[in-house]
Amino acid sequence: MSPADVHAAVPNGIPVPDLDLPYPDRPEVITANLLKITELAPDPRVRFIFKNLISKLHEFVHETNLTTDEWMSTIKFLTRTGQTCTPLRQEFILLSDVLGVSALVDALNNPSNGIATESSVLGPFFTEDAPDVPLGESIASEGKGEYMYVEGRVVTSSGDPIPDAVIETWETDEKGFYDTQYTDRSVPDCRGRLRTDAEGKYGFRAVVPVPYPIPGDGPVGDLLLTMGRHNVRPNHLHMMIKAGGFRKLTTSLYPEGDIFLSSDVVFGVKKSLVVKLTEVDDEVEARKRGFQKGTKFKLLNYDFTLLTHDEAGVRGLDD
Amino acid sequence: MSPADVHAAVPNGIPVPDLDLPYPDRPEVITANLLKITELAPDPRVRFIFKNLISKLHEFVHETNLTTDEWMSTIKFLTRTGQTCTPLRQEFILLSDVLGVSALVDALNNPSNGIATESSVLGPFFTEDAPDVPLGESIASEGKGEYMYVEGRVVTSSGDPIPDAVIETWETDEKGFYDTQYTDRSVPDCRGRLRTDAEGKYGFRAVVPVPYPIPGDGPVGDLLLTMGRHNVRPNHLHMMIKAGGFRKLTTSLYPEGDIFLSSDVVFGVKKSLVVKLTEVDDEVEARKRGFQKGTKFKLLNYDFTLLTHDEAGVRGLDD
Repeated sequence: MSPADVHAAVPNGIPVPDLDLPYPDRPEVITANLLKITELAPDPRVRFIFKNLISKLHEFVHETNLTTDEWMSTIKFLTRTGQTCTPLRQEFILLSDVLGVSALVDALNNPSNGIATESSVLGPFFTEDAPDVPLGESIASEGKGEYMYVEGRVVTSSGDPIPDAVIETWETDEKGFYDTQYTDRSVPDCRGRLRTDAEGKYGFRAVVPVPYPIPGDGPVGDLLLTMGRHNVRPNHLHMMIKAGGFRKLTTSLYPEGDIFLSSDVVFGVKKSLVVKLTEVDDEVEARKRGFQKGTKFKLLNYDFTLLTHDEAGVRGLDD
Repeated sequence: MSPADVHAAVPNGIPVPDLDLPYPDRPEVITANLLKITELAPDPRVRFIFKNLISKLHEFVHETNLTTDEWMSTIKFLTRTGQTCTPLRQEFILLSDVLGVSALVDALNNPSNGIATESSVLGPFFTEDAPDVPLGESIASEGKGEYMYVEGRVVTSSGDPIPDAVIETWETDEKGFYDTQYTDRSVPDCRGRLRTDAEGKYGFRAVVPVPYPIPGDGPVGDLLLTMGRHNVRPNHLHMMIKAGGFRKLTTSLYPEGDIFLSSDVVFGVKKSLVVKLTEVDDEVEARKRGFQKGTKFKLLNYDFTLLTHDEAGVRGLDD
């Protein structure tokens, strides 16, 4: 036996609980005993979360009269979900997304106050390796799609500019793929990191995003088929904005007109994030913004309003 | 882009649902939209299970006001749980076990009728490769622990013998390890497959099982520490019995006196499965049963009562 094996099965040093625990001869005693034992968790938040989780989970099993085969299928599904994850693919986030949990956690943690820009789901395609892009330059290499210019300001809730805010942005190419979905990805593409200028302004060249199906070759793809749901996200541009003293904003902008907007498979679209793209057909304007070919591009103008940590009721957590 | 990547993201062919889905600007709309979409699942059982699951899951997030960091920790925990699974280790079953779900599913699917032998959790250590062991022979190699002889009958609910019933049995050695926990495992040990004789009788040599900690070097081990729970299962001998026309019985026998019986980390112990071991100290009896050394062994006598599929209300499912 290897040292790792011995280590794998040492008692964890926690004693037998000093509790009256009858043998779980009936289903309800299993739940009751587990809840009693959970009262002994040292951290009150752990206690609170697990008591709720255990109650809901056991209610689910009871109320659905889940069969042994159904539970084994669930175990296999969850195992496969974990094993589908790689450094560039997070299938459990995808599962959380399609079950509305990511959107719900986001909505509860980043409530709208009617002034701040609303948040949207992070999704599984953010990476840390986006290149720094100077203002006015492009996040996409030539030929990745229809030209789009994105510009606007990042401001406080009273409309004052926030200079030096860091904007992370990422999107699909015209084929509906993120760079990380190509096995031959050598450098990041259709993603970049920018900083607002002294007036809180930003601007960059990009491509018009298109609706795209989330990966369908894993367990989450199978789940959607079982549930009779399409697997498409509407067109969107991801934006994550950080600035010292302000709550981090993770959101997306959704160009209007997409038929998938209201049935987004991950429940990310909010009305205030649906935007209008203006068509520009002007050679001077196109060249001025650095587009190399033709006379046409789409213009997206959007101002982002950030809350201070005080306004958001959270101090320094995401700074 | 490789063909696999293209395949990874093809739309699944299911159309945009013909539903009134407002943008999920508020948390409760996310849940409501998802429940509406779930009504479109073609299979009624899928519909029923997922509506319940989604409701419970969203209630859990709401009622605990789960933070973004807590949810990301959960995602990482589940991912690690999947990635800890190997052909010889099933960490998700272990998770299900310590959260009482395995015991609950078992209890609901195999209700006691007061006559049949009660069931207990399968656990993660069953393997398909147990050797056929002739009646009276040993499932354990010499030196694996204190001698134990197990004998009894497999009978119908009216007490008639069930001949040719297949018994799968497995247990730990005296160190508290299953054979699969040794990295140098070459052949199965402390496990075997037997068949009852014409009178429904069985008998085999084994070793006295000992309490043991479940693997503590994975995410489930960490979870138990977080919850302030010990990670020990009381001593037990697994038994799985199949016979044509009868409901499969998956159970364990728990020798009395173990201090971990009532706080079994996986909630497997039922009163009717707690058994008395009789000490025998007799050279003739020891040799007669094939024990090679000394004069002592423990005797475990237990009769198993199986239900027919009719009695169990299930036809042929586990046959």
